[in-house]
Amino acid sequence: MLLLIPGPVTTRPEVRAALAQDLAPWDNDFRAVVAGLRERVLAIGEGDPDLHAALPLQGCGHFAVEASVRSFLPPGGRLLLPMTGAYAQRLARLAREAGRIVVELAVPPASKVDPALVSAALAADPSISHLGLVYSETGSGIAHDAPALAAAAGRLGRRVLLDAVSGFGALPLDLSTRPEIDAVVFTANKCLESVAGVAFVLARTDRLVPGQAGSWSLDLADIHNHALRHGWGSFRFTPPPQILAALSVALDLFDAEGGQPARLARYVANARTLHDGVRRLGLDPMLPAAVQGPVVMNVHAPADPAWDLQCFVDALKRRGVLISNFSSTPEPSFRIGCIGAITPDDMAAAVAALDAALTEIGVRHRAGAPAAD
Amino acid sequence: MLLLIPGPVTTRPEVRAALAQDLAPWDNDFRAVVAGLRERVLAIGEGDPDLHAALPLQGCGHFAVEASVRSFLPPGGRLLLPMTGAYAQRLARLAREAGRIVVELAVPPASKVDPALVSAALAADPSISHLGLVYSETGSGIAHDAPALAAAAGRLGRRVLLDAVSGFGALPLDLSTRPEIDAVVFTANKCLESVAGVAFVLARTDRLVPGQAGSWSLDLADIHNHALRHGWGSFRFTPPPQILAALSVALDLFDAEGGQPARLARYVANARTLHDGVRRLGLDPMLPAAVQGPVVMNVHAPADPAWDLQCFVDALKRRGVLISNFSSTPEPSFRIGCIGAITPDDMAAAVAALDAALTEIGVRHRAGAPAAD
Repeated sequence: MLLLIPGPVTTRPEVRAALAQDLAPWDNDFRAVVAGLRERVLAIGEGDPDLHAALPLQGCGHFAVEASVRSFLPPGGRLLLPMTGAYAQRLARLAREAGRIVVELAVPPASKVDPALVSAALAADPSISHLGLVYSETGSGIAHDAPALAAAAGRLGRRVLLDAVSGFGALPLDLSTRPEIDAVVFTANKCLESVAGVAFVLARTDRLVPGQAGSWSLDLADIHNHALRHGWGSFRFTPPPQILAALSVALDLFDAEGGQPARLARYVANARTLHDGVRRLGLDPMLPAAVQGPVVMNVHAPADPAWDLQCFVDALKRRGVLISNFSSTPEPSFRIGCIGAITPDDMAAAVAALDAALTEIGVRHRAGAPAAD
Repeated sequence: MLLLIPGPVTTRPEVRAALAQDLAPWDNDFRAVVAGLRERVLAIGEGDPDLHAALPLQGCGHFAVEASVRSFLPPGGRLLLPMTGAYAQRLARLAREAGRIVVELAVPPASKVDPALVSAALAADPSISHLGLVYSETGSGIAHDAPALAAAAGRLGRRVLLDAVSGFGALPLDLSTRPEIDAVVFTANKCLESVAGVAFVLARTDRLVPGQAGSWSLDLADIHNHALRHGWGSFRFTPPPQILAALSVALDLFDAEGGQPARLARYVANARTLHDGVRRLGLDPMLPAAVQGPVVMNVHAPADPAWDLQCFVDALKRRGVLISNFSSTPEPSFRIGCIGAITPDDMAAAVAALDAALTEIGVRHRAGAPAAD
């Protein structure tokens, strides 16, 4: 089965095998694995161990995004947020429920966030301390230019929270050149090609304010202090050790492949194969190739009365391809992931499965509604 | 390797095997598994589907305890907390950091919480809305009489938050007779004998106040609303699907064993074998047999200059027994779990390993300091 959700993503058998063992999180051998993981993910982001730390958090990416908002902004603090899509909306909601103020910045559809607009919005409101940004926005499929946008914020003395959940490990990131970034959030189960259950924040530890989070569970300062007192292999609360063991194997595979540049190159090739393929089938990708990112592709729902997303998903599943049975876009669509332990050959097979599934469910007019109008 | 940490606990091979697969959390087949899980754990607690729901939360038990405090007490709300040991202290800290007021109730060492003391403390302070309680306190090894203590609070019109993390599935719980209980928190990796990565709250859904949590991630009302809108198999944010699949298998094994009574009986037998065994070795359990609970046993550190906890843990590990390399008690101790997929025969083997490990590290005087004084 190809998981093109994305993610969780398709993993390699070695990663799955690492799950099937009893593990004690407090065991010294296991602590060494965790400490190594933290060093390795910090290195992927080019973090400086004197300034940054990889802070793990049990659970999912949203918890780590909320922890970052709570730990770096005080209650009532103000965050500029380019409204790039569904995941920016989620970031806005979690910041607001945490008592922080979100200043929304409109972003035209199907386009990358313009650094000049960010600069103008920040210049117009000196009370905004932080820029929030979703690096790869699942709601559009666009990978925004996070380094340039962070730099724009940095030039105005503002700091940056980067939701890199769906892009970390594939999209470029060099914290050594981006001192304005306070936090980079990611999970194990996207471009690192492991399974879900743990999130990380690459955090500027010198800027953490103990207790500011107003939540012990979500306090990055406390996670950092715990590591200083108890070692980098230790968790405050029981972690999912199987998930961490699997991530360690996934990072071995990441290194063996050639790290971030190689992974990005493979995903770009996956996305290109998929984009060309769906167009060949007469389907309408929601983005032109020029702005289509390498992580996820949203495709207009065919403007055909026979179209039914769940039926389509079921027909694809019978052909060994699993996609989401919901979409994250304002308009009806389906989405296909380009990440995970998959290759352009897998994408070509997925395109063939798309074709057969559409035929099976009786969709003849494959173009989306806008093209059909 | 026997994991006697506890927990994570020793699991059965069938549980571990269920981890080693790629899974899509949004897949309809998988949603059915999750919906079934929720029904099954609610039934273990004798919850009423019209009043209660099993609300899953990614991560660890502490997150779910904090979510319960935030979701059932308003900011500034007051919680009476019998200070039973390390986990009560943790509950106090997370409630305070969440802006709730903790009223501590002193508990004499090595004794169960007295319902009369709880009643007196609640009667003396009508502003206290809730009793918080750790069912099985790892910091002592005592399983407190949660039903009787909840009843005492209920008679005074107060409600109850029960941290049942290390006891759920083994210790008795019948929510149908305990209307004052708002929340019962537990995880997959203790007496349910699966692996860590997900927690649950059995919650009185009619008493949930949307938005009161002040944290989207930790808002039980939102988890419940999401289920009402999107179905009982759906999560708000990416869950760890392998962890949930393993728990489903673990519940099959739980049912096959005979449910909570059978599990409790096995753990009681484990604890008795261990208690008798460590006493036979000349070691001092911290509790008399009459108050020793069935989950974890704390043993006084031997008052011998050769004693070193890490050396002892390492010597045990070479013999296939893994225990914690830290203690949760005020006095020096080591702790041994009685829970997980283990039997009295395993405990007897562990006792033999304890004996050999003590000899290897040169401990001759095995009694603890109090006995030696």
